[in-house]
Amino acid sequence: MEGEKDVMDGEMADESEQKDFVSVKHKPAFDGEQFRRDSEAAMAWVADYLEHVGDLPVAARVAPGKVRASLPAAPPEQGEPFDAVLADFREKILPGITHWNHPRFFGYFANTGSEPGILAELLVATLNVNGMLWSTSPAATEVEELAMDWLGQLVGLPEGLHGHVEDTASTATIAALAAARGLRPGGTVLASEHANFSVEKAARLVGLPFRALPVDEEFRLRVDAVAAEIDGAAAVVTTSGTTSNTAVDPTAEIAGLCERAGVWLHLDAAYAGSAAVCEELRWALAGAERADSIVINPHKWLFTPMDCSCVWTRRPEELFRAFSADPEYMPDRDTTVTDLKDYGPALGRRFRGLKLWAVLSWYGREGLQELIREHVRLAQLFASWIEETPGWEVVGRHDFSVVCFRREGSDEENQALLQRINASGEAFLSGTRLNARFVLRLAVGNARTTEGDVARVWELLCSLDRA
Amino acid sequence: MEGEKDVMDGEMADESEQKDFVSVKHKPAFDGEQFRRDSEAAMAWVADYLEHVGDLPVAARVAPGKVRASLPAAPPEQGEPFDAVLADFREKILPGITHWNHPRFFGYFANTGSEPGILAELLVATLNVNGMLWSTSPAATEVEELAMDWLGQLVGLPEGLHGHVEDTASTATIAALAAARGLRPGGTVLASEHANFSVEKAARLVGLPFRALPVDEEFRLRVDAVAAEIDGAAAVVTTSGTTSNTAVDPTAEIAGLCERAGVWLHLDAAYAGSAAVCEELRWALAGAERADSIVINPHKWLFTPMDCSCVWTRRPEELFRAFSADPEYMPDRDTTVTDLKDYGPALGRRFRGLKLWAVLSWYGREGLQELIREHVRLAQLFASWIEETPGWEVVGRHDFSVVCFRREGSDEENQALLQRINASGEAFLSGTRLNARFVLRLAVGNARTTEGDVARVWELLCSLDRA
Repeated sequence: MEGEKDVMDGEMADESEQKDFVSVKHKPAFDGEQFRRDSEAAMAWVADYLEHVGDLPVAARVAPGKVRASLPAAPPEQGEPFDAVLADFREKILPGITHWNHPRFFGYFANTGSEPGILAELLVATLNVNGMLWSTSPAATEVEELAMDWLGQLVGLPEGLHGHVEDTASTATIAALAAARGLRPGGTVLASEHANFSVEKAARLVGLPFRALPVDEEFRLRVDAVAAEIDGAAAVVTTSGTTSNTAVDPTAEIAGLCERAGVWLHLDAAYAGSAAVCEELRWALAGAERADSIVINPHKWLFTPMDCSCVWTRRPEELFRAFSADPEYMPDRDTTVTDLKDYGPALGRRFRGLKLWAVLSWYGREGLQELIREHVRLAQLFASWIEETPGWEVVGRHDFSVVCFRREGSDEENQALLQRINASGEAFLSGTRLNARFVLRLAVGNARTTEGDVARVWELLCSLDRA
Repeated sequence: MEGEKDVMDGEMADESEQKDFVSVKHKPAFDGEQFRRDSEAAMAWVADYLEHVGDLPVAARVAPGKVRASLPAAPPEQGEPFDAVLADFREKILPGITHWNHPRFFGYFANTGSEPGILAELLVATLNVNGMLWSTSPAATEVEELAMDWLGQLVGLPEGLHGHVEDTASTATIAALAAARGLRPGGTVLASEHANFSVEKAARLVGLPFRALPVDEEFRLRVDAVAAEIDGAAAVVTTSGTTSNTAVDPTAEIAGLCERAGVWLHLDAAYAGSAAVCEELRWALAGAERADSIVINPHKWLFTPMDCSCVWTRRPEELFRAFSADPEYMPDRDTTVTDLKDYGPALGRRFRGLKLWAVLSWYGREGLQELIREHVRLAQLFASWIEETPGWEVVGRHDFSVVCFRREGSDEENQALLQRINASGEAFLSGTRLNARFVLRLAVGNARTTEGDVARVWELLCSLDRA
């Protein structure tokens, strides 16, 4: 730990003050030699996994209950060495893992446990601080705020927003709707029928009625539908990058309606907000500067391990009103600092800002842009193969890294094709419904995905098509 | 990854089926050599930190804004090597850390980033799976359910409860109150005036009125106060181990009232539930078998890194009713398995069960008991020193590992003493108010805390008493 004392602010307690004490030297109950061996074994597995995950079957091939049944039904009486824990993990748990960090995982929104993100999570668990107050670990608050500010700059958000990190977009939406409810109790929450279902869940949780509104032919929330309902609304949630189809709602137009009616506007850019790191995709956040709150999930398409959901607001006082409290077992409020526990539902706060900061530092703006552009390129390439092949159809727009498509034929045939792909172990896709038809869905998002991986899934699709 | 294919269930795609394809071999964009160097550097820091954290000042000594100002105001254009990220972490961020993993951190509820917990978090970030559905990574659901069952056995909960892991007790309470609201919309949430403020926050979030009820002379929720209000209630929250004073509410008696009135009973055993691993402390969970939901936080006193909050319920159908949904972009519901997204607010789910499983495996029942008993012994020893020293006073009971105490004199003098202790860098305590008087609070909970550490804080208290 050499050098750390040099950079500490403030002074050490004067040695002379302590001379009367019995010297009780701390002896940590920590076996450094053993830990170094164990951590080496764990890290060797990690490096090996990241190098070879592409050779594993993507989807787990286990029957329900099999993993659980392979482990003892009762906890051990005596503790086991870490070797044994790691062996159980490899032999009994790993076969039940669907490998989201596999370069041919194309389901849902593909994500990445990146090198800096993984190593930062290691540091976070080692420090194990609770950043509920500034004073409980000042760097946890300040690095979180800095990383939020960095990301805001990268995607072109206005300066001066209040930013903090939640676990998931579900929680971010809950926070936004709680703030909105404070201003308009009992009002309706409006969102597109293609909004993520976490919006409806959040409305249900905070006790506001939810109304799903129709979309246009490109699956974007219809402005006229919002206009018709705005008077009774507490909040409108627009989406940049819907889960089914990555459609981008017309947030800027809807912002005008919200402003006139005094209704909270929450922009759920959990997926497509990351694209705004690239200037040519910044339109994905058009209107964000007029939203009351915005969420982007770096754990989706910004190479940050789960969980990391970034929320900005220009009205932090409304979040504060919904969530602040001053219990007696905490120090008197220090109004010169920000206590992030006051801006969301949870009191305990993991140091999530560190991994976001590490990821942004390690990739830099150019590294992030390069990966985002490559993923968009791969998705467009895949779409072009679909489009030029008779019997296949691209469904809807594909502006980012997700392509919805289907084979000529029934929903059942397309579902069966999806099952064959996933059962092959070579790739993993998911599906959805657009215009009441089942479609397959390819989501590029893993940092290690290459053109070869996308080509391979297309080959598989062609080969398993009528298998 | 040798050996993994052997234990996979199901079959690999037949090689012969693939012979017509152009062979596109996946080339991972992953620099294994570099990662091994970087991970070695990170892990060397981790081991060094865990070995020497006891030599660092416990509380950060930085002025507000200093950490943030030490880092660039804008994100880097080009990515930085991990070395540079780690150097910034050590030199600029670490001085702003208050070391919760320090053996002389005695504030709030002291916790532990233990060896198996830290290494499991590394594995979790590496896999980076989303366990929202059973099918999105079967082992994530099954290991979480198994670990919940193991912990239930360790603390003596009834068999057959539904268990899952949330991030914090705040979220667990939100889930419980949402379920309660479904049965009794508009009813009041009742809890002791010493309940954690996350209960009031949760009631506010789900839109139920909250009433803080009086306590008896030992800071336990008064049964007669609950009886007087039960008819208009939606839920009662009892606490085992209040945050101020680790008081244990009479849950069994209150359960009778709740049963007769049909009111949801949530037991917040976030802290003291862990004590029930020891038979002689199992009374801390008396009445738990009659609660509708129970929360215990292994990230408090069970050596698991944040965040890990365990919720059990005997009425999972009520949580399901509050939180389930079947969006089109997910597979059709498979009723033979459990999808844990349906039992709490968040859709995205980190594989938190793995670290709980690893911690329980590594310590075993005996290892956990030994540590809990040692922490209780240390707290009682500390209390005995206070009690036998004129001018000092223990305030309230101290059944577990937390002792509230004060020096003869004014609240201001006691607050000043707390500040001197924390400014010394040698130990960290927090404070609270009991019977309208300010008291200091020593919480033992770090796995590496020894008798020497507790002796040291007592020496400090005596020395800094009138400094």
